[in-house]
Amino acid sequence: MFAPPREIWDLTLPLRDALPFYPGDPEVEIETLYSTAQGAKCNVLKLRLGTHSGTHVDAPRHFLAGVTSVDRLPWSALLGPARLVQAPSGESIDANFVRSLDLTAGSRLLLRTRLPGVPPPPEFPASWPALTAAAAQEIVAAGAVLLGVDTPSVDAFHAPDPVVHQVLLGAGLALLENADLSAPPEGDYTLVCLPLRIQDGDGAPCRALLMR
Amino acid sequence: MFAPPREIWDLTLPLRDALPFYPGDPEVEIETLYSTAQGAKCNVLKLRLGTHSGTHVDAPRHFLAGVTSVDRLPWSALLGPARLVQAPSGESIDANFVRSLDLTAGSRLLLRTRLPGVPPPPEFPASWPALTAAAAQEIVAAGAVLLGVDTPSVDAFHAPDPVVHQVLLGAGLALLENADLSAPPEGDYTLVCLPLRIQDGDGAPCRALLMR
Repeated sequence: MFAPPREIWDLTLPLRDALPFYPGDPEVEIETLYSTAQGAKCNVLKLRLGTHSGTHVDAPRHFLAGVTSVDRLPWSALLGPARLVQAPSGESIDANFVRSLDLTAGSRLLLRTRLPGVPPPPEFPASWPALTAAAAQEIVAAGAVLLGVDTPSVDAFHAPDPVVHQVLLGAGLALLENADLSAPPEGDYTLVCLPLRIQDGDGAPCRALLMR
Repeated sequence: MFAPPREIWDLTLPLRDALPFYPGDPEVEIETLYSTAQGAKCNVLKLRLGTHSGTHVDAPRHFLAGVTSVDRLPWSALLGPARLVQAPSGESIDANFVRSLDLTAGSRLLLRTRLPGVPPPPEFPASWPALTAAAAQEIVAAGAVLLGVDTPSVDAFHAPDPVVHQVLLGAGLALLENADLSAPPEGDYTLVCLPLRIQDGDGAPCRALLMR
C-alpha cells in the first residue's frame, strides 16, 4: 500500500520566528524555553502562532459556524492523488482556465502562481493572483475535494468580500494555503496533507508533502 | 504507490485549550481571535504551545546541540512500515522484551503500554512505564529508526538522568511521544508521522496516522 516513494517534495514553509503573517493574524513567535547551550538538560521551544500561520489548511469552519472543523476534515480530502498545475500569469485565475483542466470528482488541485523554481517571497506580498468567484464555482462543480495554492489566500489580499473562500469552503472543500510549490514539476502526485488536530479548529498549520 | 488505505487510525491527541502538559513545558492555550458568532468575518484561533505539546516528535536536537533538528528528520524515519506491539505490564520495558521482538534494521516500533481500548488519561499521569537503558540500547542495536509510545516520555517522569532519550536520540532515532495507540490492534501498518516543520526545532507537535 505504501511503497517507498521515489521522490518526495516538502510543500511546507519552515516555521520560524517572525515568519511573515497575514495582517490581523497572530504573529509567529518562536522562542527558546530551555537550551543545552545555556546549561539546561534539554532543548525546548515555545511557540505562538495562529491557525493560519505559515503553510496551513483552512476547514469550512474558517468562514462558517457549525460546519466541518479542521480536526474532522476527511482523509479522502487530505490524502490521495493530486495534480500540480501552473496557473496562467495575470491578476486572476478564471473559470476558463479551470474548465480547461478537466477536473474529475474527488480531484485535488494544486495551483502554482509563481514561475517554477521561484522561491516563496521572504516578505508578506502586497498582492497575488486570486481565483475569480466563477473559477471557484467551476472547481466545486467538478467535484474537487481540495485546492492548494502558493499564495497566502485563495482570495485577493483583504478582499472585502472573500467570495472564493465562501464558495469553496461552503461546498466543503479543504484549502491548502501558503504552500511552497516552487520545486516539483507540473504533473500527477500523491498528496499527504496533515494539519495539526486542533479540536474544533477553523484551520491549522500543517505539513504537506507531494510524492511520486 | 498510494492505494487508498482500507483503514486509517489517527494516533494524534486532539489539541485543545488546557491540554495536560509535562510540568515545566509551556501550557497549551488556544483562544478565539476572531469569531463569526461574535460578528467577525471569519473564525481564527490563537495558539500557544511548546515543541513537546500533545502528540509530538522528538528530534535528536532535543537533548544535544548541533545534531538533527525536527525539520531535518529523514522521511525514511517518519514514513513507512511500522509495528504496533503491546508492552508487557509493569513499571519498565526491558531489553529481554525488546529482544523478543526480533526488530530488523529500519524498523519503526510503536509500544502500547495501556491495555487495548483504554483511552489516554484525561489528566497528566503521575507515572508510566518507561524503557530501561538496556532496552533502548537493544532498539538501537537492531537498527530501528523510530520509536513511538503512548506515554508522555520514553523516560520515567522527571527521570534525573533521561538516559533512554540520550541513547535513542544519540543514535539518531526519531521519537513519537504521547501517541494515542488505544484503537488499532497489534500488527503491521504503514506509519505517516508528520511533525510541523519548525526550523532548527528540537521537536514539534505532529499528526501521526497508522494505515493498512
